[in-house]
Amino acid sequence: MNLLILTTGGTIDKVYFDASSQYEVGTSTVPAVFEEAGVTLPWRLEPLMRKDSLELDDNDRAAIRKVCEGAAESHILITHGTDSMAVTAEALVGIAGKTIVLTGALAPARFRTTDAIFNLGLALGAVQSLTPGVYLAMNGTIFPAGKVRKNYQAGRFERTDTP
Amino acid sequence: MNLLILTTGGTIDKVYFDASSQYEVGTSTVPAVFEEAGVTLPWRLEPLMRKDSLELDDNDRAAIRKVCEGAAESHILITHGTDSMAVTAEALVGIAGKTIVLTGALAPARFRTTDAIFNLGLALGAVQSLTPGVYLAMNGTIFPAGKVRKNYQAGRFERTDTP
Amino acid sequence: MNLLILTTGGTIDKVYFDASSQYEVGTSTVPAVFEEAGVTLPWRLEPLMRKDSLELDDNDRAAIRKVCEGAAESHILITHGTDSMAVTAEALVGIAGKTIVLTGALAPARFRTTDAIFNLGLALGAVQSLTPGVYLAMNGTIFPAGKVRKNYQAGRFERTDTP
Amino acid sequence: MNLLILTTGGTIDKVYFDASSQYEVGTSTVPAVFEEAGVTLPWRLEPLMRKDSLELDDNDRAAIRKVCEGAAESHILITHGTDSMAVTAEALVGIAGKTIVLTGALAPARFRTTDAIFNLGLALGAVQSLTPGVYLAMNGTIFPAGKVRKNYQAGRFERTDTP
Repeated sequence: MNLLILTTGGTIDKVYFDASSQYEVGTSTVPAVFEEAGVTLPWRLEPLMRKDSLELDDNDRAAIRKVCEGAAESHILITHGTDSMAVTAEALVGIAGKTIVLTGALAPARFRTTDAIFNLGLALGAVQSLTPGVYLAMNGTIFPAGKVRKNYQAGRFERTDTP
Repeated sequence: MNLLILTTGGTIDKVYFDASSQYEVGTSTVPAVFEEAGVTLPWRLEPLMRKDSLELDDNDRAAIRKVCEGAAESHILITHGTDSMAVTAEALVGIAGKTIVLTGALAPARFRTTDAIFNLGLALGAVQSLTPGVYLAMNGTIFPAGKVRKNYQAGRFERTDTP
Repeated sequence: MNLLILTTGGTIDKVYFDASSQYEVGTSTVPAVFEEAGVTLPWRLEPLMRKDSLELDDNDRAAIRKVCEGAAESHILITHGTDSMAVTAEALVGIAGKTIVLTGALAPARFRTTDAIFNLGLALGAVQSLTPGVYLAMNGTIFPAGKVRKNYQAGRFERTDTP
Repeated sequence: MNLLILTTGGTIDKVYFDASSQYEVGTSTVPAVFEEAGVTLPWRLEPLMRKDSLELDDNDRAAIRKVCEGAAESHILITHGTDSMAVTAEALVGIAGKTIVLTGALAPARFRTTDAIFNLGLALGAVQSLTPGVYLAMNGTIFPAGKVRKNYQAGRFERTDTP
């Protein structure tokens, strides 16, 4: 199995800059998390964007799709902001022969209390176990693309149909 | 999907008792980890044993198998000590219609630096994505039962065949 | 010894709001940190402001001074943003019979890697050990008010004289 | 100010060895904690023993005293197991011209939830603020040697007199 990690930004990679008292998307947290978890599966990281997912537009989604289509790897894990993760998942549907799993976090990975580390494990367990298709891994659940939305009020993902 | 979490002990649940300056298997870390990760998937926890996995014998494995066979749930996640996790995995092979994933940790979940939280995510992502069978989720990798061993020297799991 | 904790804002209390993808000063981290550290010394918390320290002006400093002067407690620990902590320290000099220690953090207390918890311990150890006066506790060092500045380039505090 | 850090063992430095499923006193946590806290104060570390404090005997205490008496530094911070910390503190009373502060932890510094980091800050704030003498820094409180005991039932330190 060959694995590509694509990073697009989002809360999961938010860091805090004391110099500017600001909070921005930093470098990917994946290498540090994978090292701490002793991941031995081979993987390649491609940092694509550093955006809040509300800033992602159709051009960005086309670019993400193009990278997925052109990648040598058959398995792709994408880190993404939560606000439009479900939209990007739908925009990737239909790429033949690729298993794609999107994940992210509601609290930055650098926080002491965060869902980021668990979610990266969840996505990695799913991406190597699923048949080709596009999925979203959040709240301990693997959702198929097109059947999931973020419930902003409740701060969690849920199915749009009755599974 | 119905999920059962079975706990058998191991490093993942080790806690430290100041009173005795000792280190013992405590209650399961799963509820706290799942809450922090915002897991919305329904699950039931059954604490079965609190043993170091080197202490587990054939009777213990028969008991674990019996619980798996009798469980109403079709998907089972087992937390287990790492030393004999591969042995227990093999002892569970052949239960019809059940997807069983074993995981654990090389460092206790209560540690600041640990693989426990990531591994629980990994196992949860795998257990809901795989067809019936028995698997082991460690080092970011999903191994089929019977084709994995712990490399004690290197402190990690590896395949016994060439996949 | 009677201890007052005054909070004025700053990086130490920064939290992240997923709803708005924003980063704001939240409630004081002191109660959670003191509970985890098993602090048995009696203390009273007075949340005064929630500002980045660059936003603090002369009126704010006059308000902080007034609260210190009027407090029943003889020992006061102030959490404060780092950018103007040295300025506020100087503005509090000369209050008779009070030992005042200011501290804060370069990384939010909610982060996994942070100086906040250590700094609160440092300030608490100092405030109950020093004679009346105004001090700043950062970088593992107790500085007297008026002889310390933040080195923005290096991201640390240093003396302005040769001690 | 010149600072010596003496380490004698105890829960604060407990680590977990997966190889043996055991829990032993490891190397001192002080360098990592001081680096994370950005400590700029100069200090020297002398690892003296790696014992649970119940194992410390009169010979060990004589050795600790000898190192304190002979040290070039006037300020000494000692990390120590909690069970006999109060006993060692008393055994160090009467060394002229030295400010000595003992601290430790009820939960290992490597734990995610621990008093170790706060306590090291507390002790460092105290040792540079106090006049010569011997003190114990635990539970957010600076106790004078000879007037403090560990309450084993409650798992905390308390004064033996009415302060």
